[in-house]
Amino acid sequence: MHELGVVHQKITRADREAVEALRPFGVATVHEAMGRLGLMRPYLRPVYAGARLCGTAVTVLLQPGDNWMLHVAAEQVQPGDVVVAACTTESEDGFFGELLATSLRARGAAGLVIDGGCRDVDALREMDFPVFSRAINAKGTVKATLGSVNVPVVCANALVTPGDVVVADADGVVVVPSARAAEVAAASARREAAEEGKRARFAAGELGLDMYAMREPLAAAGLRYVD
Amino acid sequence: MHELGVVHQKITRADREAVEALRPFGVATVHEAMGRLGLMRPYLRPVYAGARLCGTAVTVLLQPGDNWMLHVAAEQVQPGDVVVAACTTESEDGFFGELLATSLRARGAAGLVIDGGCRDVDALREMDFPVFSRAINAKGTVKATLGSVNVPVVCANALVTPGDVVVADADGVVVVPSARAAEVAAASARREAAEEGKRARFAAGELGLDMYAMREPLAAAGLRYVD
Amino acid sequence: MHELGVVHQKITRADREAVEALRPFGVATVHEAMGRLGLMRPYLRPVYAGARLCGTAVTVLLQPGDNWMLHVAAEQVQPGDVVVAACTTESEDGFFGELLATSLRARGAAGLVIDGGCRDVDALREMDFPVFSRAINAKGTVKATLGSVNVPVVCANALVTPGDVVVADADGVVVVPSARAAEVAAASARREAAEEGKRARFAAGELGLDMYAMREPLAAAGLRYVD
Amino acid sequence: MHELGVVHQKITRADREAVEALRPFGVATVHEAMGRLGLMRPYLRPVYAGARLCGTAVTVLLQPGDNWMLHVAAEQVQPGDVVVAACTTESEDGFFGELLATSLRARGAAGLVIDGGCRDVDALREMDFPVFSRAINAKGTVKATLGSVNVPVVCANALVTPGDVVVADADGVVVVPSARAAEVAAASARREAAEEGKRARFAAGELGLDMYAMREPLAAAGLRYVD
Amino acid sequence: MHELGVVHQKITRADREAVEALRPFGVATVHEAMGRLGLMRPYLRPVYAGARLCGTAVTVLLQPGDNWMLHVAAEQVQPGDVVVAACTTESEDGFFGELLATSLRARGAAGLVIDGGCRDVDALREMDFPVFSRAINAKGTVKATLGSVNVPVVCANALVTPGDVVVADADGVVVVPSARAAEVAAASARREAAEEGKRARFAAGELGLDMYAMREPLAAAGLRYVD
Amino acid sequence: MHELGVVHQKITRADREAVEALRPFGVATVHEAMGRLGLMRPYLRPVYAGARLCGTAVTVLLQPGDNWMLHVAAEQVQPGDVVVAACTTESEDGFFGELLATSLRARGAAGLVIDGGCRDVDALREMDFPVFSRAINAKGTVKATLGSVNVPVVCANALVTPGDVVVADADGVVVVPSARAAEVAAASARREAAEEGKRARFAAGELGLDMYAMREPLAAAGLRYVD
Repeated sequence: MHELGVVHQKITRADREAVEALRPFGVATVHEAMGRLGLMRPYLRPVYAGARLCGTAVTVLLQPGDNWMLHVAAEQVQPGDVVVAACTTESEDGFFGELLATSLRARGAAGLVIDGGCRDVDALREMDFPVFSRAINAKGTVKATLGSVNVPVVCANALVTPGDVVVADADGVVVVPSARAAEVAAASARREAAEEGKRARFAAGELGLDMYAMREPLAAAGLRYVD
Repeated sequence: MHELGVVHQKITRADREAVEALRPFGVATVHEAMGRLGLMRPYLRPVYAGARLCGTAVTVLLQPGDNWMLHVAAEQVQPGDVVVAACTTESEDGFFGELLATSLRARGAAGLVIDGGCRDVDALREMDFPVFSRAINAKGTVKATLGSVNVPVVCANALVTPGDVVVADADGVVVVPSARAAEVAAASARREAAEEGKRARFAAGELGLDMYAMREPLAAAGLRYVD
Repeated sequence: MHELGVVHQKITRADREAVEALRPFGVATVHEAMGRLGLMRPYLRPVYAGARLCGTAVTVLLQPGDNWMLHVAAEQVQPGDVVVAACTTESEDGFFGELLATSLRARGAAGLVIDGGCRDVDALREMDFPVFSRAINAKGTVKATLGSVNVPVVCANALVTPGDVVVADADGVVVVPSARAAEVAAASARREAAEEGKRARFAAGELGLDMYAMREPLAAAGLRYVD
Repeated sequence: MHELGVVHQKITRADREAVEALRPFGVATVHEAMGRLGLMRPYLRPVYAGARLCGTAVTVLLQPGDNWMLHVAAEQVQPGDVVVAACTTESEDGFFGELLATSLRARGAAGLVIDGGCRDVDALREMDFPVFSRAINAKGTVKATLGSVNVPVVCANALVTPGDVVVADADGVVVVPSARAAEVAAASARREAAEEGKRARFAAGELGLDMYAMREPLAAAGLRYVD
Repeated sequence: MHELGVVHQKITRADREAVEALRPFGVATVHEAMGRLGLMRPYLRPVYAGARLCGTAVTVLLQPGDNWMLHVAAEQVQPGDVVVAACTTESEDGFFGELLATSLRARGAAGLVIDGGCRDVDALREMDFPVFSRAINAKGTVKATLGSVNVPVVCANALVTPGDVVVADADGVVVVPSARAAEVAAASARREAAEEGKRARFAAGELGLDMYAMREPLAAAGLRYVD
Repeated sequence: MHELGVVHQKITRADREAVEALRPFGVATVHEAMGRLGLMRPYLRPVYAGARLCGTAVTVLLQPGDNWMLHVAAEQVQPGDVVVAACTTESEDGFFGELLATSLRARGAAGLVIDGGCRDVDALREMDFPVFSRAINAKGTVKATLGSVNVPVVCANALVTPGDVVVADADGVVVVPSARAAEVAAASARREAAEEGKRARFAAGELGLDMYAMREPLAAAGLRYVD
């Protein structure tokens, strides 16, 4: 965990097919399908409306106010990867902007999740390069201290192992361990199918009280109806 | 206040005509027209740009991480109601999403104000189902512990009695006691009419210093002009 | 600093030409070009997407929950000015709304930066009157206590002297001392030109590791590559 | 609620005997005994270690950065009262200090609960005048705008009616409606008695799993024990 | 990670001797000796002045507002263990108080680290049962939903594996992987020995500039001394 | 402002006699005596109960997570100085601990005010070396990037010029410009003398309503007394 000064060049990415199977689903669905695990803290927000991403994690461990390791990480990126940047402490500086986005895009990256700040957000929206960050901040960073690339990291309170699948949309960011990607995609599909039926019933006026058979347990718990 | 385990089925909603009379006005205007009372804390924000609502409150008291009572509340909703959800503690979990929105819409609800989190915000925007929440969070909730429906609640530091009018837009959320709805609507109209005249004078270059006759009180308070 | 009860009527604004020279550049660029100085804290955010401004500072020192001095400031505004409002304490009330925006626009103001709250944000978007604030809040203010106009102020942790150039966009707000405006504009232009070349190289797949000759210093710092 | 510009001189205080009956109990016990209602948000903290209070509420509604109404409230204080100060907005200025504490003590006040800031905390500790506030702040306030005294207020998200009993200690602040004071005191005593027995059993090594017969419901919920 | 509904009964605790070897050192020293890894976020604070602990982790994964799993965990505690409680979301309710502390102490527990709230803090101080929490909150919890015991958890952004050594004092909380405990204790001892020498030299007036030979690198970095 | 890479060796300290004249007064008194100017934001707190300081500012501008400049500053410290450390961004790392405190004490420093984090707080309390910081954090810092020493800085939203007097106690931190130190000390003494008289009158039961002749202005403002 959080080993410093190392770049792991070989990582095992989640199966490409499983990643594609996860892509259609929203974060809330995936999180439920996983058994409510792997969600990052909700302070991570998209830097522009409509940003979303799904890909395999290349992880970075940053030092505060220092983005050196993002350049090191760029070399490790393969098409379809999402860079997931944790930090050894809380830091909201602008570690990332248009130039690095251009570089990552050229490498085929699908986006960035960063427990830190981001800048050039107008340019990022124009490029449609999705970033999920904890702050928007014009303050730039230095390149002076080593972190690591492709070590397991804790990002916004979620453990991310290189190669895990990361899914992000307006609802937040969730991490799916690579070994579970296919299974979670299948569970997401089942969940979404089930929700479709429920949606129709709700739209037709059926109540959750009846659909989920809640009236009895509510009464058992002591709920009283009064006029 | 905050009675647990009870559903009040009969509430006295604000007069429908008064609600419609309030609808054209923004939150800032209504809040001023009420004498600057009834505003919820500004951490409640619309989950999508352009969300706004005006309707009568069906109140819910939630337990942290538990949305059972929202299903109980749905049954109490009548067309034009706004569900106002308080919580017994601070909790930013995603108590509410697309399925419940579908259910509430089917019941005729005008929207939701929740001192908690919300998810499926892309779907909510597509449905144009307005939600004002303190967080966006994919984390779902359980259905295990009783709260209440249609008891007076304190939501984001404002007291809400079932049947009160709730108005929300980009500026925040304000609560108008049902007995005052007609009066506040009238005062809002007067205020807006007065503002129209002022707007024209400001646009023509007149200063607030002159329009509000501030020069004398400023001098009396000791304001000094220097070069 | 923060003198109370005074209005300075004569201030030395940054050279108009220098202001225009700064206008094309984003906040991140200007901040870098200045040597990473003058950035306000990132909690100041545009009240609508797309807001941006560039102009000379008319400063205001407000008392909490009191916008009297904004009316005093309006008289001091000249075309192209940006009102920069600090507060003697932390206060997120809605000091500013549509009417004051109409007044400031009539005076030729280019926008507002306020270490406080703002309301009527829908109207501000429609008017396209850019405001950068720390909160959106329908709560209005009184007119009872003196502050000052055109004294040096500390706004969101940045010192602003009347006449300084203020640049704000989606990345934040930066202050350029009037004496440095021309120089910083020139440095911004050079920086942007340099970035264009880099952008092209990044887009072509060149890595920052090579473009910035980082491989040697990384090795010297002890970075280890493993499989 | 939150009526402005009024001082109610006659309030119905909770029965003195009931107040005394509540005094021995901690906030957590009282809150439980009430059915988990009436707790203020935990951001209210004692300004010195060891502060605690129990008394009947004289309520004040303050304007931001303005402590005029605290002087008005002082006249309404009777021995054993606790001043409970809400604010029309969020404000952390130092509304209260040593002089007002001296005045309140001379009136017989038992302490202060304030959804705002407090100063002179060293003097308050020396006087042992208990204050529970949201901030410590040397910034003083003005006396310019009317609020109210002895109207129902919402303080730190809890509704307080004049005359209610307020209990505060290191765990927080809880409000007991005057009509329930005797009943809650009795329930607190029962709860504490029950806890004494449990404490002894826990100290002797008995597990909550057995004391509360949790093993069966845990198994029913699906808990699995593995090696 | 964060598996739900499971209790692992067999965990591998760090070597007892290594735990004792770590005990004399402060959190800052241990964190440095580990290579600056394993520190929890600084929002975890001792609930009373002077609290400190060192022991082996029994981990708990809690649901928001629900302390059922703490009772399950108590049975797994062995003398010298520290209970480390993470939560599936952010929750500041009072999960823990005097009774559970009595139970844990009877089991031999050395204290609690909880990414949530705690109550009965006066009693905890009297018992000298050390707790490090993110909040003090009288709000109690329910016992309704399963979490887990002795699974790896992320607590305050740090990964904790059951059996790891947890050290906490006024400076924060740090986690030492059990496999590294002996090594880190040795490195801590070396560091402290080195610091003793430095302390004496600093106390004698030697400057860090000279002790650490910083003058040359500062000059190389371009530092200018002016009068 | 915030010039980088420079050490000013000659600064003009406030008159020693004026510093001594300020020493007896608390922060709230000094802040009032200055006309309510110069207060730092209240998030700066003493790291141990009872910490207080009064001295002349040696300023430091730090980079995030980097304490190199504190060592540079140490050389500039003269007996009676207070080190005031600002940061180019928000950073809560532990920039300062026991060793630097030992060094600063050896130089005669009176304490530290830092818009950042601090560690070794148990040792600091034992040494009685007063520190006012925004966080307590065991996370150490690097020595890699230049800031400055003895340039004007903005610290916690207050402008500090080298040589200014800094006064800090449990109520916060206030800065007195060196040129005003004698005058502010005299005004503080007058204020305290006046307060003594008021304290006695308050203690004797006189109300602020009468002492400050508030009844008439309250009535004029429209305050209504009702039964």
